[in-house]
Amino acid sequence: MLLIVGSLAFDSVKTPFGAVERALGGSATYCSVAASLLCETAIAGVVGDDFTAKERAIFAGRRIDTSGIATRPGKTFFWRGEYGFDLNSAKTLDTRLGVFGDFDPVIPESLRRPDYLFLANIHPALQLKVLEQMAARPKLVALDTMNFWIASQKETLKRVIEKVDLVILNDAETRELTGEANLYKAARLLRSWGPKRLVVKRGEYGALLFDGDHLFALPAYPLENTFDPTGAGDSFAGGLLGRLAETGAVTGAPLREAMAYGSVVASFTVEDFSLGKLAQVTRADLDARLKQFIRLTRYELED
Amino acid sequence: MLLIVGSLAFDSVKTPFGAVERALGGSATYCSVAASLLCETAIAGVVGDDFTAKERAIFAGRRIDTSGIATRPGKTFFWRGEYGFDLNSAKTLDTRLGVFGDFDPVIPESLRRPDYLFLANIHPALQLKVLEQMAARPKLVALDTMNFWIASQKETLKRVIEKVDLVILNDAETRELTGEANLYKAARLLRSWGPKRLVVKRGEYGALLFDGDHLFALPAYPLENTFDPTGAGDSFAGGLLGRLAETGAVTGAPLREAMAYGSVVASFTVEDFSLGKLAQVTRADLDARLKQFIRLTRYELED
Repeated sequence: MLLIVGSLAFDSVKTPFGAVERALGGSATYCSVAASLLCETAIAGVVGDDFTAKERAIFAGRRIDTSGIATRPGKTFFWRGEYGFDLNSAKTLDTRLGVFGDFDPVIPESLRRPDYLFLANIHPALQLKVLEQMAARPKLVALDTMNFWIASQKETLKRVIEKVDLVILNDAETRELTGEANLYKAARLLRSWGPKRLVVKRGEYGALLFDGDHLFALPAYPLENTFDPTGAGDSFAGGLLGRLAETGAVTGAPLREAMAYGSVVASFTVEDFSLGKLAQVTRADLDARLKQFIRLTRYELED
Repeated sequence: MLLIVGSLAFDSVKTPFGAVERALGGSATYCSVAASLLCETAIAGVVGDDFTAKERAIFAGRRIDTSGIATRPGKTFFWRGEYGFDLNSAKTLDTRLGVFGDFDPVIPESLRRPDYLFLANIHPALQLKVLEQMAARPKLVALDTMNFWIASQKETLKRVIEKVDLVILNDAETRELTGEANLYKAARLLRSWGPKRLVVKRGEYGALLFDGDHLFALPAYPLENTFDPTGAGDSFAGGLLGRLAETGAVTGAPLREAMAYGSVVASFTVEDFSLGKLAQVTRADLDARLKQFIRLTRYELED
């Protein structure tokens, strides 16, 4: 089972291709819907009393255990952002923490022995608290974060990073966190803090994996129409960790293969606003696109 | 034999890691030195009387026929540029055409039957003149250009592009030339003009190949220290076309493989200013780095 600790949210997003108001979002939402295509998942997070049965319906009929979602009086986390034509970086216009402001995660007893744990993008102090509640060390603990925590909570964040196996960041975050402009030097420094593995997400340019002495580079799945990159990174993590949980692996070729699953799942997410497309995707859709993806990244070379 | 028509130049380049004054450069210089690691090459271009035996020494002892280099009274093409920390785009500070200003290429009789022809970045009208001088259609005609010609000579440029087999551009150039922001749509449009194949260079993010119905994505060779990206694109083209000329291929798996050669050759170029590193590279160095490159881009997937 893959336990995902992160946000459930309402997002108002504007891109050059349209806009949505108070659409379903949050790192745990995207990640769990993505991962549940591949494995049993569970969510831990908090929502306000404005998070109704209508929103919860996204989890129904999927392999998602929602017993770790706490409901508190107040408003669900809200984010308003805007993307320019390149869709590579969001401009945050408004963030309202709501019930996330004083969230103190208590993981239900039944969810404290996950095989895989994903500490999605929340306050690093909360990530640490969750990790400390585990009854046994998961096979793999992965972590994501964002520039906001890197700027404001770097020391706490470093203390969590020391304890995890896999860090998943985008390239700007990797550079900012390490203070090192060259990505390969930055990756070396970050891994010297503890994590054996680092995945660097590069948006439309794909992703890099640093695993032991091995570097692996994967392109992004090519798309003619992208509408909204919100949730792409969380979907990528969901596809990657979901595939690992499905196979039981944590490293080596299966990890590289899992990155391809992550890329493909993320490609569905960006094809519509919110979870509009991702929520419609079946395992058969995923496998079909994965086959196309393999075809476009393969080449033969004489050894 | 691969015939390369392009510039021979002096470059003054400043990057955050250093600077050089009037160093040897030019698209034909980088491309020929790169390609000559793999195949017989010839250059056509023009230099001024300031291009002395010292500069010409770069071609000595390599498989480079320099009989197509015309010498004219006056100054050799000069470019002054500067790169910021991301090294992705150059700021042009000065361009002096010199003898290139009224260059009218006349390809020597002995060079008019190349198997492969590369129309490197020069005025599209000159590219057209060169192509019309060929005594027989080469197996493959490839073309590069730059934003300056796209902005000022778009119609002439399109007339040349219609006649070539392979276009090699960076992503910004591809978008600008087609007026299409989405790279995949831009590629489709450009190829509708005539060229069967398009390679889109993406700097540190690698390169894409559009070939028939097949899309292929290749990452860049990872480097901890890059000093000067000048000439990287020309070296990439040299490695790619040199490998094709070596194998006699023009498409399919050998073309994808040739892109890996291009990436690896370019990785040497950016490790020093001018041709400082590239000129020292041996075929054995190239093959060794290629092996590492294959290793980092391979992954296994269950079919």
